[in-house]
Amino acid sequence: MSTPEILYDFGTGRSDPSTFPTAALQAAAVKVIEEEAQALTEYPGGLGHPGLRRAMAQREGEREGVFINPDHIMLTNGSMQAVTLTAEALQENHGDTVLVEEFSYPGTLNAYRSLQLAMVGIKLDEGGMRIDHMEQTLAQLEQQGRRPKFIYAISTYQNPTGFNMPEQRRRDMISLAAQYGIPIIEDNCYADVHYEGKIEPAVFKLDDRPEHIYLGSLSKILAPGFRLGYVYARPPMLDKILARRHDAGSNYLAAAIAAEFYKNGISAHAGVTNPVLHKKRDLTLDGLSTELEDICTWSKPSGGLFVWLRMPDDVDRPKLYTLAQASGVNYLPGVSFHYANRNMPYLRLAFGHLTEAQIQQGIPILARCIRKARTSNEPRAFTTLFD
Amino acid sequence: MSTPEILYDFGTGRSDPSTFPTAALQAAAVKVIEEEAQALTEYPGGLGHPGLRRAMAQREGEREGVFINPDHIMLTNGSMQAVTLTAEALQENHGDTVLVEEFSYPGTLNAYRSLQLAMVGIKLDEGGMRIDHMEQTLAQLEQQGRRPKFIYAISTYQNPTGFNMPEQRRRDMISLAAQYGIPIIEDNCYADVHYEGKIEPAVFKLDDRPEHIYLGSLSKILAPGFRLGYVYARPPMLDKILARRHDAGSNYLAAAIAAEFYKNGISAHAGVTNPVLHKKRDLTLDGLSTELEDICTWSKPSGGLFVWLRMPDDVDRPKLYTLAQASGVNYLPGVSFHYANRNMPYLRLAFGHLTEAQIQQGIPILARCIRKARTSNEPRAFTTLFD
Repeated sequence: MSTPEILYDFGTGRSDPSTFPTAALQAAAVKVIEEEAQALTEYPGGLGHPGLRRAMAQREGEREGVFINPDHIMLTNGSMQAVTLTAEALQENHGDTVLVEEFSYPGTLNAYRSLQLAMVGIKLDEGGMRIDHMEQTLAQLEQQGRRPKFIYAISTYQNPTGFNMPEQRRRDMISLAAQYGIPIIEDNCYADVHYEGKIEPAVFKLDDRPEHIYLGSLSKILAPGFRLGYVYARPPMLDKILARRHDAGSNYLAAAIAAEFYKNGISAHAGVTNPVLHKKRDLTLDGLSTELEDICTWSKPSGGLFVWLRMPDDVDRPKLYTLAQASGVNYLPGVSFHYANRNMPYLRLAFGHLTEAQIQQGIPILARCIRKARTSNEPRAFTTLFD
Repeated sequence: MSTPEILYDFGTGRSDPSTFPTAALQAAAVKVIEEEAQALTEYPGGLGHPGLRRAMAQREGEREGVFINPDHIMLTNGSMQAVTLTAEALQENHGDTVLVEEFSYPGTLNAYRSLQLAMVGIKLDEGGMRIDHMEQTLAQLEQQGRRPKFIYAISTYQNPTGFNMPEQRRRDMISLAAQYGIPIIEDNCYADVHYEGKIEPAVFKLDDRPEHIYLGSLSKILAPGFRLGYVYARPPMLDKILARRHDAGSNYLAAAIAAEFYKNGISAHAGVTNPVLHKKRDLTLDGLSTELEDICTWSKPSGGLFVWLRMPDDVDRPKLYTLAQASGVNYLPGVSFHYANRNMPYLRLAFGHLTEAQIQQGIPILARCIRKARTSNEPRAFTTLFD
């Protein structure tokens, strides 16, 4: 039997290919390969290309309304290298405890598993991590002598749930972290994929203590193939992370091209890409409303690339996956995102990479597969994503 | 006091800037940014750009006269990421023992220190690692219950010594590794910076057992700023290394540009760069012969970027370093390369990045500094680098 072709790939979170700025990047490449030829024959050093560090300091500083020192930004090979390096810098032993969202980014979860960190998941609701559960968890761990090495939080347009943590809850999380002396690693890679509503503040805006770490990325605003991410951290934490780095620096060529492209800020290109992604989000939500209102619920993200969908408990999930693949639809099942690999009735739809037509055609096909994989015709027994 | 300007920087091993192929790389960038725009908006996956993997499989296969499967090549962020990843894949615990050359590449030594590997140095002579010492060391370690996790070997144009291990010794090293069931990590990043004489075979040519690992790089044949290296390994070892990788893949943009540049093989560009580097090596050796024959000895490398120089024991080495820096000369002292940080009377001269004039002017200045830093005027008491 041949593998069916995936025509509707809601699987991975990628940028929109139609707005890839080919001509501008070609011009940038031609310019920097000549002007920075000398630097390209050298090793870039631990922090990386100064121009891109300045551009990213400007990006973060303008969004948050605070000054960011470019010398406190360290470029990495995508934000995944930043995820791994920062965990390695804070880890002392195999089995060290860390707090994560109950559902989180599989890249991070797999990296932490590989590092043999013991993850403890904090329950989520529509505002992200529940502070009452975090408080209770920290108290219990403390009794067991297990103080977490850090809290990993994707508070803005969270992957996979799409939630945006409200400011007061961010402040409460910071207070709780301070009470136990635990640093927060804030992964804010979706921050500038913003559609509407309030832009919630980053941890470093609310709390300037230098133990917190911030991770950024160009994968969602430009393209994953550039493999450019960064850590924003202050000494002495920055030095601790730098000391764990052994790759002789990040990609200078890609960084130079991106720096030239973003030399006047990121807003011009974000002004092109975000409306396109916003439209795709709307089509995804519209399709779900039309097709699945009676049996499912889902998130309505105000930014980012993902919709998180809750299915009835009676969906045979392996059967659904087989049906969907056979119908040309790909998605990531809930189990991929659970910190303890628990199989739960959720799935994630990534809409950034598909065409509008693929979204409009793919959602009804997925909806039919979900209905076929059920063992009943009952309406949904839940009203929210997490009740 | 102001820091003096370094006019003669023999410090780091870099490619020649005058032969940086600006126009060809600009053309390659323009082509691939358009033709591979779609792929650039996707995640590259664990192995990386297929075209560059094919080009590097061809490079290795042609030099060694064996077939290399491009799907057994995994691109990395420079060969330093490959050094770290492969060690992490083979390491089981802090304190695990590994064998290294007594003098080796500081990047690797620092990475292994950071991973808390216990390095044991194998003595060198003009043919690289001494097999008699390796045999004795392995027997002693075995008695202590410390079987090494791997042997790290830069057998060709070794950094820092420049030695090229003869074929029979390579075979002896492989036999000894087989006897103890220890994989060899061969770091062959200088292989194609070849000037004259016999090209010695890589481990994978002499022994096709899939436990051995091979590391390659584009930093020495193209430019370090591209941050492109690779691992050549076969399953199941390849899968073990891939499983330890958590950066969502190497730089696709830089890889695509390099693949286009090397689509007809690496020999055309190597034919431009190697004669230029060969000339610089000759000027370095000529300068040393004229200036230091009576008191020093040094390696005469048939490839690579380094000359390893032995000084009289009565050189006040901190004084030499201060004198040299004040005279505008930079080099790396022997201690940087010793596996146990032992301070010994050696220094390394990297000649690839300097102009011919800088080499011709810099060596006599360095020679005067060495004489000034001595406490006697005696001729040298040794005849070889390691007697």
